Amino acid sequence: MRNVITLTTDFGLQDYYVSAMKAVMLGIAPEARFVDVSHDIPSQDIMAGSWVLKNSAMLFPSNTVHTVVIDPGVGTDRHAVAMKVEDQYFVGPDNGIFSLLTADREYTAVRLTKNQYLREHHSDTFHGRDIFAPAAAHLSRGVPLEELGEPLDELVSYRWMQPIADKDGLEGNIIHIDKFGNLITNIPYSLIEDAIADKSVKIYVGNIILNDIKQTFGAVAEGEPVAYIGSAGMLEIAINKGDAEEMLGIQKGAQISLILQK
Amino acid sequence: MRNVITLTTDFGLQDYYVSAMKAVMLGIAPEARFVDVSHDIPSQDIMAGSWVLKNSAMLFPSNTVHTVVIDPGVGTDRHAVAMKVEDQYFVGPDNGIFSLLTADREYTAVRLTKNQYLREHHSDTFHGRDIFAPAAAHLSRGVPLEELGEPLDELVSYRWMQPIADKDGLEGNIIHIDKFGNLITNIPYSLIEDAIADKSVKIYVGNIILNDIKQTFGAVAEGEPVAYIGSAGMLEIAINKGDAEEMLGIQKGAQISLILQK
Amino acid sequence: MRNVITLTTDFGLQDYYVSAMKAVMLGIAPEARFVDVSHDIPSQDIMAGSWVLKNSAMLFPSNTVHTVVIDPGVGTDRHAVAMKVEDQYFVGPDNGIFSLLTADREYTAVRLTKNQYLREHHSDTFHGRDIFAPAAAHLSRGVPLEELGEPLDELVSYRWMQPIADKDGLEGNIIHIDKFGNLITNIPYSLIEDAIADKSVKIYVGNIILNDIKQTFGAVAEGEPVAYIGSAGMLEIAINKGDAEEMLGIQKGAQISLILQK
Repeated sequence: MRNVITLTTDFGLQDYYVSAMKAVMLGIAPEARFVDVSHDIPSQDIMAGSWVLKNSAMLFPSNTVHTVVIDPGVGTDRHAVAMKVEDQYFVGPDNGIFSLLTADREYTAVRLTKNQYLREHHSDTFHGRDIFAPAAAHLSRGVPLEELGEPLDELVSYRWMQPIADKDGLEGNIIHIDKFGNLITNIPYSLIEDAIADKSVKIYVGNIILNDIKQTFGAVAEGEPVAYIGSAGMLEIAINKGDAEEMLGIQKGAQISLILQK
Repeated sequence: MRNVITLTTDFGLQDYYVSAMKAVMLGIAPEARFVDVSHDIPSQDIMAGSWVLKNSAMLFPSNTVHTVVIDPGVGTDRHAVAMKVEDQYFVGPDNGIFSLLTADREYTAVRLTKNQYLREHHSDTFHGRDIFAPAAAHLSRGVPLEELGEPLDELVSYRWMQPIADKDGLEGNIIHIDKFGNLITNIPYSLIEDAIADKSVKIYVGNIILNDIKQTFGAVAEGEPVAYIGSAGMLEIAINKGDAEEMLGIQKGAQISLILQK
Repeated sequence: MRNVITLTTDFGLQDYYVSAMKAVMLGIAPEARFVDVSHDIPSQDIMAGSWVLKNSAMLFPSNTVHTVVIDPGVGTDRHAVAMKVEDQYFVGPDNGIFSLLTADREYTAVRLTKNQYLREHHSDTFHGRDIFAPAAAHLSRGVPLEELGEPLDELVSYRWMQPIADKDGLEGNIIHIDKFGNLITNIPYSLIEDAIADKSVKIYVGNIILNDIKQTFGAVAEGEPVAYIGSAGMLEIAINKGDAEEMLGIQKGAQISLILQK
């Protein structure tokens, strides 16, 4: 059974877009059980969507079908695709949205070209309803991936800016800011272990300097900034019981440096 | 089976209103499967809710029960109603919320007057929990519509401003602005086919002039305005990869003209 | 069966936090049916979350499992708990979030200390995914509460400011403001019945004075303020078809007085 279908979009919930997709899917797969991953991805922010997928999609039970519609190029010649990554299925536009998922994983992909698995008379502006929803629903009913279209060897791929390790330490960037204003960097714990280990370090970000990496927010006083390894395995900066984005005035893309101390 | 129950409200999700409705429905119909159409309809905006319903409700599988609570007149003498439109059921206040659905469809309606299908001791300010939720749950369990109350011949009805076609072309209005800032007009494709067909036209809206109707956003350069037929079958104005509401400074109600060129 | 699992968080839906929790729960309890109570509790606002729980959790069918993650102290020495209150189960941090639920009800609680019911290698910043989600899923599969950890006699508990009744009438406070801008007080109907009954009263709040308590918003003209007993059984102040918070400039914590008239 593949009856769990997730949805990740930038549609919000004030319009008919999400419900139209679910209606179409229930028409094809009446037993579908929906999990809304997010409809609040910032409009057309492909990498924000990719970040969310990277950190939750692979946790789902085997054969979950993930429907992803952040699709600024709808109706142009960008491909519509379905793919399998390990034991999970994905359907969406081939615009880089799957980049972080496929960066270090094998996948099999097809272009969605078979009309019998799409909605009749599909629009040029709402492939979520007309192409991705029906394809996801057919996958969830057990239609084999290869049945949905032509094989596709390579997907459009983006990547975050990469952190740099040198003799002075590490340089990275803020790649995501969450709902709490926590600043998430592109520096994974594994790189810190390699480049810093238990050596003394100073962390420079915006106008602040931190002296170490703590276990959690609550390890510092309320209103104080803190560096820690977040739940996605990356270095993060937060304010204990506060909003770091707002209080530190730091934006996505900002630089962060970990400088080794003599 | 009618076990899919949708919810469309202006309640937001920060309060207990939506969960109280679902709790009451699960108490009556333990097998209910919920689809949240929207809880982000602007407060008390009956026509925005009607627009969302118009564009997704009829896509649901037969016998879906749609619970709709945008209800500024709760506790006054406005009726509480249930109705059947084609193969779909609806429950909500009789305040015009069903106008766009019933404009061109037959329906059968009843007033919700039978106490055994409502919640005991119902409040005067939360009919969502006390009247509409139990009525929807009973419908979903198979109680016949007629069983829920007295027949009602006519519902309160509103309509959008209507577009006007004359020898110079077409005049219409912006009736909805979606999450992306796309401007949706009251001019359906069918009217454009009749009045304009393939004749040359200039489109005037706010301070901009467009020379034709494209297939999709991506048919123009990034940041440029574009007219196209949207997924609801209406003429829309957008900015490719931008927010037309914000960038063009155009609001709901604004006029749009399609002027035939000699 | 305890297959309904609710979620109440301050996570929003733009991040992976909620979907990671659901993914983990589906892995343990494949038949789980989720009801999102709210993910829009204001960040770290324990009492706002407690208010929402108080007004909907006990309406759910027997054996519903409520997962609650408003958790500013994650990773510190605050306890992680599960408990049973009447016929409902709850899982969350012991930080006062259950205060309004347990204020007048018996409960049995345990600390979540058994590793076999938690996620392996749990993080210090996301107990929602690593501790509360697995514990809730195990409960929903029928694991007995006592099995999840050590008994805990007392939970951290807060309470609202209490209203005061004296010979002049009643003094209270605005404890919650809902999505519509309605002002909800800490004055229950029962106290008004005792202290005021049908005596004449003037209600002072912000810069306005009201002369009586009405049935519903619509009992006054549009744009006018109105006092009424809300759906949670508390005195509320609203503007008919308007936003009282905005139009009256009144904030959470503001005082409200009901003064008996001679």
